[in-house]
Amino acid sequence: MSNRISIIMGSYSDWETMKNTADILDEFGVKYDKAVISAHRMPEEMFTFARDASANGVQVIIAGAGGAAHLPGMVAANTVLPVIGVPVRSQALNGVDSLLSIVQMPAGVPVATTAIGASGAKNAALLALSILGVTDQVLQAKLVAYRQALHDKAKESGDLLG
Amino acid sequence: MSNRISIIMGSYSDWETMKNTADILDEFGVKYDKAVISAHRMPEEMFTFARDASANGVQVIIAGAGGAAHLPGMVAANTVLPVIGVPVRSQALNGVDSLLSIVQMPAGVPVATTAIGASGAKNAALLALSILGVTDQVLQAKLVAYRQALHDKAKESGDLLG
Amino acid sequence: MSNRISIIMGSYSDWETMKNTADILDEFGVKYDKAVISAHRMPEEMFTFARDASANGVQVIIAGAGGAAHLPGMVAANTVLPVIGVPVRSQALNGVDSLLSIVQMPAGVPVATTAIGASGAKNAALLALSILGVTDQVLQAKLVAYRQALHDKAKESGDLLG
Amino acid sequence: MSNRISIIMGSYSDWETMKNTADILDEFGVKYDKAVISAHRMPEEMFTFARDASANGVQVIIAGAGGAAHLPGMVAANTVLPVIGVPVRSQALNGVDSLLSIVQMPAGVPVATTAIGASGAKNAALLALSILGVTDQVLQAKLVAYRQALHDKAKESGDLLG
Amino acid sequence: MSNRISIIMGSYSDWETMKNTADILDEFGVKYDKAVISAHRMPEEMFTFARDASANGVQVIIAGAGGAAHLPGMVAANTVLPVIGVPVRSQALNGVDSLLSIVQMPAGVPVATTAIGASGAKNAALLALSILGVTDQVLQAKLVAYRQALHDKAKESGDLLG
Amino acid sequence: MSNRISIIMGSYSDWETMKNTADILDEFGVKYDKAVISAHRMPEEMFTFARDASANGVQVIIAGAGGAAHLPGMVAANTVLPVIGVPVRSQALNGVDSLLSIVQMPAGVPVATTAIGASGAKNAALLALSILGVTDQVLQAKLVAYRQALHDKAKESGDLLG
Amino acid sequence: MSNRISIIMGSYSDWETMKNTADILDEFGVKYDKAVISAHRMPEEMFTFARDASANGVQVIIAGAGGAAHLPGMVAANTVLPVIGVPVRSQALNGVDSLLSIVQMPAGVPVATTAIGASGAKNAALLALSILGVTDQVLQAKLVAYRQALHDKAKESGDLLG
Amino acid sequence: MSNRISIIMGSYSDWETMKNTADILDEFGVKYDKAVISAHRMPEEMFTFARDASANGVQVIIAGAGGAAHLPGMVAANTVLPVIGVPVRSQALNGVDSLLSIVQMPAGVPVATTAIGASGAKNAALLALSILGVTDQVLQAKLVAYRQALHDKAKESGDLLG
Repeated sequence: MSNRISIIMGSYSDWETMKNTADILDEFGVKYDKAVISAHRMPEEMFTFARDASANGVQVIIAGAGGAAHLPGMVAANTVLPVIGVPVRSQALNGVDSLLSIVQMPAGVPVATTAIGASGAKNAALLALSILGVTDQVLQAKLVAYRQALHDKAKESGDLLG
Repeated sequence: MSNRISIIMGSYSDWETMKNTADILDEFGVKYDKAVISAHRMPEEMFTFARDASANGVQVIIAGAGGAAHLPGMVAANTVLPVIGVPVRSQALNGVDSLLSIVQMPAGVPVATTAIGASGAKNAALLALSILGVTDQVLQAKLVAYRQALHDKAKESGDLLG
Repeated sequence: MSNRISIIMGSYSDWETMKNTADILDEFGVKYDKAVISAHRMPEEMFTFARDASANGVQVIIAGAGGAAHLPGMVAANTVLPVIGVPVRSQALNGVDSLLSIVQMPAGVPVATTAIGASGAKNAALLALSILGVTDQVLQAKLVAYRQALHDKAKESGDLLG
Repeated sequence: MSNRISIIMGSYSDWETMKNTADILDEFGVKYDKAVISAHRMPEEMFTFARDASANGVQVIIAGAGGAAHLPGMVAANTVLPVIGVPVRSQALNGVDSLLSIVQMPAGVPVATTAIGASGAKNAALLALSILGVTDQVLQAKLVAYRQALHDKAKESGDLLG
Repeated sequence: MSNRISIIMGSYSDWETMKNTADILDEFGVKYDKAVISAHRMPEEMFTFARDASANGVQVIIAGAGGAAHLPGMVAANTVLPVIGVPVRSQALNGVDSLLSIVQMPAGVPVATTAIGASGAKNAALLALSILGVTDQVLQAKLVAYRQALHDKAKESGDLLG
Repeated sequence: MSNRISIIMGSYSDWETMKNTADILDEFGVKYDKAVISAHRMPEEMFTFARDASANGVQVIIAGAGGAAHLPGMVAANTVLPVIGVPVRSQALNGVDSLLSIVQMPAGVPVATTAIGASGAKNAALLALSILGVTDQVLQAKLVAYRQALHDKAKESGDLLG
Repeated sequence: MSNRISIIMGSYSDWETMKNTADILDEFGVKYDKAVISAHRMPEEMFTFARDASANGVQVIIAGAGGAAHLPGMVAANTVLPVIGVPVRSQALNGVDSLLSIVQMPAGVPVATTAIGASGAKNAALLALSILGVTDQVLQAKLVAYRQALHDKAKESGDLLG
Repeated sequence: MSNRISIIMGSYSDWETMKNTADILDEFGVKYDKAVISAHRMPEEMFTFARDASANGVQVIIAGAGGAAHLPGMVAANTVLPVIGVPVRSQALNGVDSLLSIVQMPAGVPVATTAIGASGAKNAALLALSILGVTDQVLQAKLVAYRQALHDKAKESGDLLG
């Protein structure tokens, strides 16, 4: 049986950001595929990936991209699986271009957009897990525990204030 | 058995936008709850709603809000269910404030953000359905058909160009 | 022999803007194709169009789109013909989203971007004509005459100041 | 008797900014509490803090937060004490997201917002002191003296121009 | 005894916005002064007003202004009373200029900034009342009741969803 | 016979960006002129250059500029050759000023605008080549090969993900 | 003897804004020329105008333009007279493009920029008069009187508050 | 006889930017005063400076400020001399706040605004000189020579392209 989550990104340089997604999935012990699939330089692979994703057992797609950032939306145009878009911080515009290009999708083809950069990449993983958790009680329980750990860590950090 | 989707909004005035969400769920024949739950004026109800959502059988939460738009993020802070945030177009800033406040969540607490306004409200419904569709083949097939209908309508609209 | 210019748009609602492109081509007596081709709702037609454009005798493609506005960039990803992108004014963000999504293309896949809205649509026509004019002296002369007419009209408009 | 001012922040990393608030309160010899209270990771503590603040003798709350920055507004939703919000400079958007999320509160639940970053953190302290100074003549006199010192220092700095 | 709150505005045209402040103070039965004091056209009156405010018994100043919007900051430069700034929505930039000019004060001279437009004007009143409420139990109780009424009204508005 | 492409820039400091344009033209073995022509400091040379470009055998002009960035538009005002504008990243505003000033041309005088900075400079070269490729089958074939190489490189980069 | 002030604008449609400039000059009884001179459609006239302005007795130039708004900067590039630029409110971007294009001039060629739209057009007139007033005591006295009248009118407007 | 130009700045830290103004005035051999005059921390000195400037023989005022940047506008409110405002680059917002606060002045009180940062500071000097040059032929001739030198330097820099 194949992996339920696919992480794709428009360029290898996005991996610095998207590694945050992978790290959280690793932490949860959920397997995933990862690939560089450029909407603009590998359009055929992108189409094929999106078209076949459901049949290949993928349940949630996480796509990171920067600048014009067409990857999440174009993948979403070719599948009815949930697609999560992560705006990678761009050089000149700090990811504002990436964010608007990913989030401002027209009615009919949704992309679940997260925050710009590393925080968004982490949250993409957690969002994917919460989606799988809808019908996976074990995973949902792990998310509750993870949230509890975040809570505890935040609370404890207050001790550093002295 | 309760409804699987909850639509909440920060103010009754958001209904003009969020009705687009409801209309699509109606079109798919998927039942949903809807409620005005203001993060700022009804914080206790907001907390209770979010805390109890999973136990109440809710599987996906769709939250629309404008301006400071804290509702989606604060609901997400109190549940591990997938939360979809819809930035309602605000008066002075056209929803840029709503968008940033909803999408720029810190690592740990994701909100799946859609486009500003009516398009985002429609896509929130479709995203929720795609999430349920992960393990609901009938629903996924309906989404494929819906997408096909959008395709056909877009294609036919070209005839209007003359 | 087929038309040398193709005007495509992401939605029939973009025609209000893109008609400005067609009007100028009409004024120059240059034939063109026009079609609604949605990147998100008609991805296969979009791919086919872009892939076959050169073989079909198209020499310049003009693509108008609003919001996430992936059409110009995705067409450019599938052809080496010059692609001109027109940012259509979007509802919430006045076309800032359209502009950034069209212009911020990654290295390797250019889109020649014009101004937001009607001015950009008109200039897309003139830019396409100037491209054809590179090796078409008659057309280049027409562009010079057109520019002269604009000059004369601007100059005469000063008389209205009284 | 408890401290009259509480400084809270959404994350320990905000302390670098919020220390500026504490330093000024120290300079005035006004005691204060300080704590990390994350709206998203510690929602219950946040509610409890806000609900009990008045009964605990707190008179003014200063809340610093970055990104989605829901903390000041959510605390304000649960108390009628004056809440001062400090937008902490965020990584991708330089605090524009923090600012809009804090300042664009809906009618009914005010947050007194200051400038982004260190200047805003300092001014949050001075604003809190001016609020206490409304009925505390000694404190008001100290503020007058502080302002005079700022004046003198600014004036003297002109000598450096040579 | 004089009024404890002063509402000032940079232009009579700001009254449409600032009337929202006055209405809430009326609702609470708290008396206030109101005046047009332009920082740019009436600088001497502005200085005199700010300098004498404390001696005149004013306890909180609410200043609304649009565009360059220097009024709140310049009044704050001449008093240590709490100054609340309301960014009035400007014609070309929708109040973004007003907001930045009011909120981005340098360290040393705070302005408590509220949201752009009518919501901000209403919240300026509530913020002023919360400041007075710090040492006025009756007023604080009224604010609690007001907040409760907002809660009830928001909750009831949900019935309109049908 | 003269070179068919001219690269001009508003300042020598733009060369760091525009060298990316030259490098790609070198890679394609297409000769080009390059010059510093400041619209503001060398207006006569700018006019002369633009007016004589066509007669001098230039077929496409690539103009890079930052800040007010009037060069591309003013050159376009004096020729009917295709003019490609590259927004150079400016110091304070990261090229947003350059982009808007270049792309927001009035109807009648088009500038084909590319992305801010190095990506835009590279794409300006490719766009110029695609324009020449309209009637140059050999060049068009080289562009197809170049695109294929980009594809292969992107695809292979995925192996780095491990 | 010729007029000392010239008002020029990029398009007749700018007259709606620039008429505000003319009205104030009329009010002061200072004669002026006015003309439509498009930088993009009438570049030769623009150059000639700028080059000859000083010799023609012009002492201050006021240039209004919208969108790419190259007129003020290009006129400034061809004269050392003071050039005042008025950003006309543009359709899609509300004059943000006009403002940045006019104000962000490179070192060496200044443009004295005023506010977007009608306020800026009025202030352009007053700024020109203040420039002439540097060596014209009568005019400077008139400006003092004008300012006094503004003061009185602002002060009296306060009576409307009731 | 006193100096004809005054350079003032809101903070000593602005000197890094405003030194560029002084350097150009030095280069032209035009004497000037320079001072730190904070609108917010030295309001009385600011008022006195502005009120007395004309009587003190000042002919043009150059005021640099960052952030809320009220100095240029408030000086302009107290004199009818030409006031040139230089937006100093601010920490969080790169001078966008400074620019808007300086340029968006209300009708009646103009500030001649230049670009953000060093370029604007240099141009403020040149603008002041062009204002004095209106009735000073020697100075105007120097400006022509300066412009010619800029031209020559720009032209020669092209040789560096190789």
